[in-house]
Amino acid sequence: MTNQQVILVQRPEGKVDANTTKLVEVRRPVCGPDEALIKVGTLSIDPTIRTWMNDAPGYLPPIEIGAPVRSSGVGVVVESQSSHYSVGDVVFGMTGWQEWVVANEDNKFSTIPRGMGLDLPTMMNVLGVTGITAFFGLTDVGQFKTGDVVVVSGAAGATGSVVGQIAKARGAKKVVGIAGGSAKCREVVEEYGFDECLDYREPDLAKRIHQSCPDGVDVYFDNVGGDILDAVLTNIAMHGRIVMCGAISQYNEAGQRQGLVNSSMLIMRRARMEGFIILDYAPRFAEAQIELAGLVLNGTLKHREHLIHGLEKAPEALNLLFSGGNHGKTLVVVDPSVQLD
Amino acid sequence: MTNQQVILVQRPEGKVDANTTKLVEVRRPVCGPDEALIKVGTLSIDPTIRTWMNDAPGYLPPIEIGAPVRSSGVGVVVESQSSHYSVGDVVFGMTGWQEWVVANEDNKFSTIPRGMGLDLPTMMNVLGVTGITAFFGLTDVGQFKTGDVVVVSGAAGATGSVVGQIAKARGAKKVVGIAGGSAKCREVVEEYGFDECLDYREPDLAKRIHQSCPDGVDVYFDNVGGDILDAVLTNIAMHGRIVMCGAISQYNEAGQRQGLVNSSMLIMRRARMEGFIILDYAPRFAEAQIELAGLVLNGTLKHREHLIHGLEKAPEALNLLFSGGNHGKTLVVVDPSVQLD
Repeated sequence: MTNQQVILVQRPEGKVDANTTKLVEVRRPVCGPDEALIKVGTLSIDPTIRTWMNDAPGYLPPIEIGAPVRSSGVGVVVESQSSHYSVGDVVFGMTGWQEWVVANEDNKFSTIPRGMGLDLPTMMNVLGVTGITAFFGLTDVGQFKTGDVVVVSGAAGATGSVVGQIAKARGAKKVVGIAGGSAKCREVVEEYGFDECLDYREPDLAKRIHQSCPDGVDVYFDNVGGDILDAVLTNIAMHGRIVMCGAISQYNEAGQRQGLVNSSMLIMRRARMEGFIILDYAPRFAEAQIELAGLVLNGTLKHREHLIHGLEKAPEALNLLFSGGNHGKTLVVVDPSVQLD
Repeated sequence: MTNQQVILVQRPEGKVDANTTKLVEVRRPVCGPDEALIKVGTLSIDPTIRTWMNDAPGYLPPIEIGAPVRSSGVGVVVESQSSHYSVGDVVFGMTGWQEWVVANEDNKFSTIPRGMGLDLPTMMNVLGVTGITAFFGLTDVGQFKTGDVVVVSGAAGATGSVVGQIAKARGAKKVVGIAGGSAKCREVVEEYGFDECLDYREPDLAKRIHQSCPDGVDVYFDNVGGDILDAVLTNIAMHGRIVMCGAISQYNEAGQRQGLVNSSMLIMRRARMEGFIILDYAPRFAEAQIELAGLVLNGTLKHREHLIHGLEKAPEALNLLFSGGNHGKTLVVVDPSVQLD
């Protein structure tokens, strides 16, 4: 009757390392009135987890020292004293990095629909927070319109690859990805159907964006921040929109973060830079899921999941997001028996 | 039959200096068919003029070497072969730094209404581009709502002082200015009626903004960029709006501009940073002028003009904007006989 957890023992300065977390075994939680006990199946590994490890203001409070690392994930209900959950339901919510979690008023889970013909990794990627982030970032924050020129950084990544494919499906004039290395760039074009992909490791990115988008960039979906954001700023079109989804290049920076030098281009081009947090869109998730399910089921939307097995691998899975070593949506399988069918 | 001009002879690296411009005398232009000849009265000295001197992409092409410095201003029509202009009309438009200019299809002027009981400096300040910029920046770009907490940098300046007063008149919860030095800060509170004013030359600006605005800043009207923008970014409220009106602290920077390090706060707070150029609002100028005229005529809106006499003083008047040596809206009087009454 135990519960393995990966807990935060020390706030990392830069990357997560051996001193940051610890695998511990505690007593399995029990299910009280109006609660349900959930066996955790698969964890969603997202860059935002790294920001929750800092003792800094954020959209959620920092993870407490000694607590399991906060994370979303999917599990199955094994016991229920709540009218909201039935035994056997596959549910999504804040599982944390652990084997067992209790659902209650303070920690609610949503039930994942079965019978759509989609497996759990696909549901957790495209129809999960990743795909939904791509959808609302592009369409709502970015105010995408047919005929727009769209640039996406982190284009080979889970969110970026979906952004570009939605833009193509909705009639973008041109979709240009930015990714690291020629292999990823090839994948972005050949697998995900972007018109072009620029390697940010090559010199003169700003100039190459200008060559690819001579009339400027209408929507830039920014997954990385830093230098790449600066390079796009010099190429932003009149009334362009920059969607700030993540600043992944900055999350691990221990000391002074790198400054953005071209923000006054926003004045010259009457452009906008706007951040968002996908949790704010929770009441509208179904809008995105319906369109995304359609695109997956008709074969338009390509996606890829990177499965890593074992709860103890969660910290190294998180680091993969920052080294670019992951390949598609990163998921950690805690218990492979938890599936949709 | 001469025309004195201040022409651009060399693009400045930092501040405008003795090598940047030259006072020259050329032949007075003549009025052709469908044209009008205008005697220039007063020049509006705006920070944006400095950006036009650079050989860099902007919202207007750079001023050509050898051409009079581009500037808006007011003059009187002395000869007309156009149905748009009558002799004696006082008109506003791109006069340039010179004594005479021709109005035609390529360089249009608008007639300033008489009989409002407002003198020319007031019209050029509050009802001119300065006041109109304050109005649309706050209400349209900044989406000001009653009850908002508003912070304004350059608060003792021509635009900033008007922004704060409009916000107060429209029911802001609190209006906090940022200015340089205790004398200016006192003026912002005592003369312009802001609730508080913070001196950016004192340490810990970010912390002092937090003390003044513990629930965060709903609208930040940014006239300066740089460090001050970074300090406000850490204090931006959920769904806050940053209006990028100018980056005056950066205009004179010769080398690497200073980077903005806190832009990822836009993600945490789902906030927006948006630039604008007031020329885009030309069709709606009257909206602003009607509200502003009302506030001036009923005594609510305080304003101050800093008059400098002599065309040859225009370059040093421009530098005053960056040293903070001006006191209110900076105007250069070329010919004092040009007045509204």
